[in-house]
Amino acid sequence: MKVGILGGGQLGRMLLQASANYVVETYVMENDKHCPAAHLCHHFVKGDIQNFDDVYNFGKKVDALTIEIESVNVEALEKLESEGIKIYPKPSAIKIIKNKIRQKEFYQQHQIPSSDFVVTQNQNELDDHHHFFPAVHKLAEGGYDGKGVQIIKDKTHVSKGFDGHSVLEKMVNIKKELAVIVAMNDKGETAVYPPAEMVFDPVLNLLDYQVSPAQVPEKIYWRAEAIALKVVKDLESPGLFAIELFIDEDDAVWVNETAPRVHNSGHHTIEANYCSQYDMLWRIMLQFALGNTNAILPSAIVNIIGEEGYSGNAKYEGLNEVLKMENVFVHLYGKAQTKPGRKMGHVTILDKDYTQLVRSAHAIKKLLKVMA
Amino acid sequence: MKVGILGGGQLGRMLLQASANYVVETYVMENDKHCPAAHLCHHFVKGDIQNFDDVYNFGKKVDALTIEIESVNVEALEKLESEGIKIYPKPSAIKIIKNKIRQKEFYQQHQIPSSDFVVTQNQNELDDHHHFFPAVHKLAEGGYDGKGVQIIKDKTHVSKGFDGHSVLEKMVNIKKELAVIVAMNDKGETAVYPPAEMVFDPVLNLLDYQVSPAQVPEKIYWRAEAIALKVVKDLESPGLFAIELFIDEDDAVWVNETAPRVHNSGHHTIEANYCSQYDMLWRIMLQFALGNTNAILPSAIVNIIGEEGYSGNAKYEGLNEVLKMENVFVHLYGKAQTKPGRKMGHVTILDKDYTQLVRSAHAIKKLLKVMA
Repeated sequence: MKVGILGGGQLGRMLLQASANYVVETYVMENDKHCPAAHLCHHFVKGDIQNFDDVYNFGKKVDALTIEIESVNVEALEKLESEGIKIYPKPSAIKIIKNKIRQKEFYQQHQIPSSDFVVTQNQNELDDHHHFFPAVHKLAEGGYDGKGVQIIKDKTHVSKGFDGHSVLEKMVNIKKELAVIVAMNDKGETAVYPPAEMVFDPVLNLLDYQVSPAQVPEKIYWRAEAIALKVVKDLESPGLFAIELFIDEDDAVWVNETAPRVHNSGHHTIEANYCSQYDMLWRIMLQFALGNTNAILPSAIVNIIGEEGYSGNAKYEGLNEVLKMENVFVHLYGKAQTKPGRKMGHVTILDKDYTQLVRSAHAIKKLLKVMA
Repeated sequence: MKVGILGGGQLGRMLLQASANYVVETYVMENDKHCPAAHLCHHFVKGDIQNFDDVYNFGKKVDALTIEIESVNVEALEKLESEGIKIYPKPSAIKIIKNKIRQKEFYQQHQIPSSDFVVTQNQNELDDHHHFFPAVHKLAEGGYDGKGVQIIKDKTHVSKGFDGHSVLEKMVNIKKELAVIVAMNDKGETAVYPPAEMVFDPVLNLLDYQVSPAQVPEKIYWRAEAIALKVVKDLESPGLFAIELFIDEDDAVWVNETAPRVHNSGHHTIEANYCSQYDMLWRIMLQFALGNTNAILPSAIVNIIGEEGYSGNAKYEGLNEVLKMENVFVHLYGKAQTKPGRKMGHVTILDKDYTQLVRSAHAIKKLLKVMA
């Protein structure tokens, strides 16, 4: 079987690491032939994942296609699907998710709990919604890794807002953030991973560290899983999805966003779960049984992020110190160049003791720096 | 850093899967461009690993070189070493190990317990050693996967013996077979994996299944580790080594053979240990700290072997049934063609309960068949 991946970043890289456990011929398309995934596939194709012809011609080479980023040409995927190529997830699901307005409307239509929102077409319109503040302003398309998202605390922040199609979401009084990964195969069978609990860096707005399974009361645990499962069932698409959730001060669970692909919040599943998110997506695409989502041990993820103030050839300070730790798994994404905030790798920690997990996560954050 | 691997089989494949956790440029040389490892490296070079020029020219491209099979051109490696290329393990160690006569002499010289032996130059000489029977006759060079090994029970079996440089080893009264993996870095620091306990198929003479950590009394456990460590220290070479050991009826520990590379007996370390044997070899070559060899959970390995009577395009019967099992990890090596006895993949099972491990191993052996 021939399977193509649109995008050649670290998610593609880890997907290809997992692919080598199966008999499958792999294709990757990305504009940069030195991207993290380029050398791990059978066939690398240089091309623009947002360009109709590039995506269409690439898709015609394979039996099944998946994505490692949402910003792909959906029209080409729709045409490929109509011609019998299997797309994971379906173009209809990508279409809903890649546009943040459509995504919010989807939650609303399906009565999936998600914060109130209004659609704005330009920055001035924000002034019509002062009663909505504090709120989060999100560009409808093209946001990634904290870009395209602005917090509008009050009317003095309106000038930070986006001057284009955007969605303004009422801010949830967040107590916790969870992420739940859900897998669905062609038969509609599903598998749900234990929720992961996330802690964000307030400056970079990037994931700081995460522990899994989340330490939340059982009722929140099940509520989160049930809502995540509903999102995927309502998207009516096979594939692997990450659902980011907020828990508010009243223990209500709200959907923040969904990613229709393997996700940063599932990196720990490589070592910490019986079936990793990457393995799971291969099982779906290769028509095998879904895997076991149970955790072998509790885990934490620390992201390795390009240090503020450093751009250029990446150098890893403290890497050897981290590699000396007894229960850590280092993943570097093979990116030659660092810049502030760039995701350069991650470290997974396994420990049955949560206090120890958090302690190790902090130690790693202090030790490991990406300089130039 | 540029690292080359001589050989492109499944060991190379798994080594390359692990390489993608680091920043390293990878090279593979093998005669077959469709070999299991060919598509997972940055640079694939078609060449003969036994040919001086091929190995030398390949080695000149990289900073460090390793092997995934012993039958390589050692003279080329010696020249490369003299020119500053780092070789893991050292050519001097490969030279000792790849020749079974020299290997036995090495054990003898270093007072490493290993069964008595005599060297034979042709089949007729076996008749001078009737007092040695039952014994194992091994070709000095070129044996692999049970080929080049014959059991000579008594004088009526002499005609099965090899008519060339060989070693005749007195048969040990085997109670158990263990394998211990030992890592040594450039500084001479070592790390020892818990012994694995092996069960062989008496017909194919191939590993049937294995459990790890071995269930043996503590004194055998430590004796096995101490002897394995001595082998590697006496070889005076950095690298990763697998030492196969016999335990006899009197609980004495004997070295059977050593492999100077990642090894079939260490496949389980991918999921079952904090640092896999593959990760460990990268740490050594990239000058990082040695990893933690502890087991996360007890494990078993079942080899997926080409079924007797079937040659041609491989078909996996029962694969989906095995993938449904809760605690198994399937690794297929991507070989298109099967033949009787060919190593096509392996399955690792994790379970804290040894009885359950063995039960699952048997279930997998019954379920999973490689047909054509």
